[in-house]
Amino acid sequence: MTQTATRTRTGGRAARRALRTAPSFDMLPGLTRTIPLCEVMDGSQVARIDAASMDILENVGVQFRDPIALADWKAAGAKVDGERVYLDRGLVRDLIATIPSDFTYHARDPRKNVRLGGPHAIFVPMTGAPFLRDLDDVRRNPTLDDLAMFHKLSHMLPALHSSAHHIVEPYDHPISQRHLRITYSSMKYSDKTFMGMTTSPKNAEDVMEMCAILFGEKFMEDHPVTTGNCNGNSPLVWDETMLGAMRAFCRRNQPVLCSPFVLGGANTPASVPATVAQLNAEALSALAYTQVIRRGCPAIYGHYLSTVSMKSGAPMAGTPEISLMNFMIGQMARHYGVPWRSSNTLGGAKTFDAQAGYESATTLSAVIHAGANYIWHSAGWNEAGMHCSTAKFVVDAEQCAMAYRMAEGPKWHDFDEAVAAVSDIGPGGHYLGHPHTQENFQEAFFMPELFDNNSIEQWVAEGEVEITERALNNARKLLAEYQEPRLDPATDEALRDYIARREREIPAADELNQHY
Amino acid sequence: MTQTATRTRTGGRAARRALRTAPSFDMLPGLTRTIPLCEVMDGSQVARIDAASMDILENVGVQFRDPIALADWKAAGAKVDGERVYLDRGLVRDLIATIPSDFTYHARDPRKNVRLGGPHAIFVPMTGAPFLRDLDDVRRNPTLDDLAMFHKLSHMLPALHSSAHHIVEPYDHPISQRHLRITYSSMKYSDKTFMGMTTSPKNAEDVMEMCAILFGEKFMEDHPVTTGNCNGNSPLVWDETMLGAMRAFCRRNQPVLCSPFVLGGANTPASVPATVAQLNAEALSALAYTQVIRRGCPAIYGHYLSTVSMKSGAPMAGTPEISLMNFMIGQMARHYGVPWRSSNTLGGAKTFDAQAGYESATTLSAVIHAGANYIWHSAGWNEAGMHCSTAKFVVDAEQCAMAYRMAEGPKWHDFDEAVAAVSDIGPGGHYLGHPHTQENFQEAFFMPELFDNNSIEQWVAEGEVEITERALNNARKLLAEYQEPRLDPATDEALRDYIARREREIPAADELNQHY
Repeated sequence: MTQTATRTRTGGRAARRALRTAPSFDMLPGLTRTIPLCEVMDGSQVARIDAASMDILENVGVQFRDPIALADWKAAGAKVDGERVYLDRGLVRDLIATIPSDFTYHARDPRKNVRLGGPHAIFVPMTGAPFLRDLDDVRRNPTLDDLAMFHKLSHMLPALHSSAHHIVEPYDHPISQRHLRITYSSMKYSDKTFMGMTTSPKNAEDVMEMCAILFGEKFMEDHPVTTGNCNGNSPLVWDETMLGAMRAFCRRNQPVLCSPFVLGGANTPASVPATVAQLNAEALSALAYTQVIRRGCPAIYGHYLSTVSMKSGAPMAGTPEISLMNFMIGQMARHYGVPWRSSNTLGGAKTFDAQAGYESATTLSAVIHAGANYIWHSAGWNEAGMHCSTAKFVVDAEQCAMAYRMAEGPKWHDFDEAVAAVSDIGPGGHYLGHPHTQENFQEAFFMPELFDNNSIEQWVAEGEVEITERALNNARKLLAEYQEPRLDPATDEALRDYIARREREIPAADELNQHY
Repeated sequence: MTQTATRTRTGGRAARRALRTAPSFDMLPGLTRTIPLCEVMDGSQVARIDAASMDILENVGVQFRDPIALADWKAAGAKVDGERVYLDRGLVRDLIATIPSDFTYHARDPRKNVRLGGPHAIFVPMTGAPFLRDLDDVRRNPTLDDLAMFHKLSHMLPALHSSAHHIVEPYDHPISQRHLRITYSSMKYSDKTFMGMTTSPKNAEDVMEMCAILFGEKFMEDHPVTTGNCNGNSPLVWDETMLGAMRAFCRRNQPVLCSPFVLGGANTPASVPATVAQLNAEALSALAYTQVIRRGCPAIYGHYLSTVSMKSGAPMAGTPEISLMNFMIGQMARHYGVPWRSSNTLGGAKTFDAQAGYESATTLSAVIHAGANYIWHSAGWNEAGMHCSTAKFVVDAEQCAMAYRMAEGPKWHDFDEAVAAVSDIGPGGHYLGHPHTQENFQEAFFMPELFDNNSIEQWVAEGEVEITERALNNARKLLAEYQEPRLDPATDEALRDYIARREREIPAADELNQHY
């Protein structure tokens, strides 16, 4: 990894310094957490969840609504009754044992490769929003241009490690062909890691083909170059669409996020530990299936996690039980030695208001203390995922940079020198003029760009600019400075040719096929 | 402690249930944390901070700008040179050894007594705001009626364990007599614990006299019934006002918060661990002095902690370094076996916007994971403490209730029963009709009252009510339902007589004497 002063250098100290001399297109290296984990279960409680999950898998079973998966499970030695698969704990343990505990996730700029697993974590922006709040904070349906805008912002924001995929749903292109344009947009406007669409098995195959064009067929064979998300239908159901997409990814050795979709109390028991036990059983069943498809294929323990409102059934974020479940799920994933995904900055606010701030920060803090590796939905999420807010996108990304700094832990390298300054200054003095301060201040203390800490008098004099407007100004500034990390022309042409051919082959349809 | 179903019962389960059937005047019992602490230092790093702090105390010394304190220190065997006191580590360790690690903080309703120290923590509202944003969100100077409003809200909000003291500065009463009215307001409108003014030694004496009227002179002698805050002037200075107030409290065996006032990087070195080393030296010097005043007197390791903006010098909140310093300070306080105070929900936003939400939630999360015992400024703080927001006050208090739930950890009591529901429901079912869900949903999942999680369509249909308006409606509702926990008539008369006498004795002055 070069440390030269190129535009895309990723050296830790340089990148951190660059982060505070905005604008910068440098990416922070993948986070290596040093602060301790919040583990709320002792060993016997971990064993109790494990045993309950294994009992569920053996005695209640899991529905795989997919003939190929049912045949695969039969061949693997599981008891299959109709669509119900009963998984023996020995079989499950044997299968998940071959999931790598840690792997490198490759970007097209190899300096932006990131590690996943153990203390290594990445921030990935939100995806799947059917609406956006745009640069004028207007809520509307998104287009491919809007998606490109979010991919450009993802490229530029230092704490985001991925451009994800359909951050917003581009409604100006036929649904049946949309995955091709989304994938191309992720690849073109950013050289960070990206996600692959799993909206159907065929779509997933297209993503794999495009990855093969970008990275080379042979390279993909033993290097993860994208990630796909497969949601479960809790309780205890996996459907044909998700399982087919999973097979498309696993056969090419590409990791999927095995994500039970939990609305705590509605599709799980009204108990935090029992919800974790069910979710854990669901995740294990899918993780085990990835190894039936291909032994040794990387895979990620996932989930989407909310609790529901008794009043309306609406999903809620930032609640104490979500934090506790994240702490517990992290322990279970580590118990099995599998990297895990959580969701960040969730919330149900309709605008970028105080509610959005509380919910997002609470969620961010919980997933950091829980030790999540793949921290998805890290920027833009609002209104329970119904819209991606451009203003919130840039603020969330700065919050991720702040959480990153916290998770790195205190820096001791200049401790003695800094303590010596206390003698130099003595009682009643001040430090701003001291050489140690002048040399180290920027490195020592993070200064948020998007928060206003001026006096009210100064704030009034400057026009009472509130956070939404400040954030949108920042987004406009970033976009004005954006420089495209050009694809190799031959690769670009091959990708375009592939898309053109597939768009001739795939009939255009116009139904909405939204997917989180 | 009775668990009967009276209006003020404090039973855990009953109070928690009551919390979700608002309105309720029940107080949650003092928090007993079960989740693990975030300890970012190993033993050798704790020892390194300790050694650096002791070196500072021995070699740099601390300025005590107060002749009585200097004489006290001389008598205690410290080396005194002018106003500079050099504290030998042996002397410091000997003195702080007699500070109780844990004590009960008494309220006038004994069912609202709370414990401080170890896993025991309390939430105390903000204090000291020279402005408020009122029930119409108008920013203006506060009055005694406004202060009474906040004391009433403190009384009613379940997660607040104190009515504090001058939540807002009542400008309609002469400054020199204000402490009397503030103390009376705290005592009258709430039966929870309260704080005592430390704005001067004489004022502190008045508070002690009023406490003696309320609790009895003899009772006070071995029961903490109030707490006072004494700020240091970092670096390494304690002034006469604070030291005189400290003596007034300690002589009566009442605990003070020994709070260095840190603007990280401006009045401390530009280093997180070195800032902690200086702050620790400062706190230790005052904690040691409490034991010079009276051996065995309870005392609290305190601090006010911010980092400063390089642009403006303004204090910043919610930054990663503040979280890290809280984790470290918690470790130091536990190392010395002294209960410790941190600050909650800080922030510099001018309105109750997304910035306020992010900053408050980040701070709240950090102090919970840090294991703070006395969690001050837990409701209402905005604009760097320049105003107390009525809307934010009630939202923050709900956030404290949520953090409380998180810090209690997962509940395992019905685990087997809840897991059994998974078999009953099976794959693809839903749980809302299951008897276990119906019986346990409310207890299992916290439902914030002040967050809106409805669909945008429903939100629009209901008039697009944003969080500030929702919160103010909630505050109005609480105030309409407020019932005063009447003082015993004889006590009330004695307090009024005392105030009347002192107001005749104390000349009215009108300068501002603001104090955090």
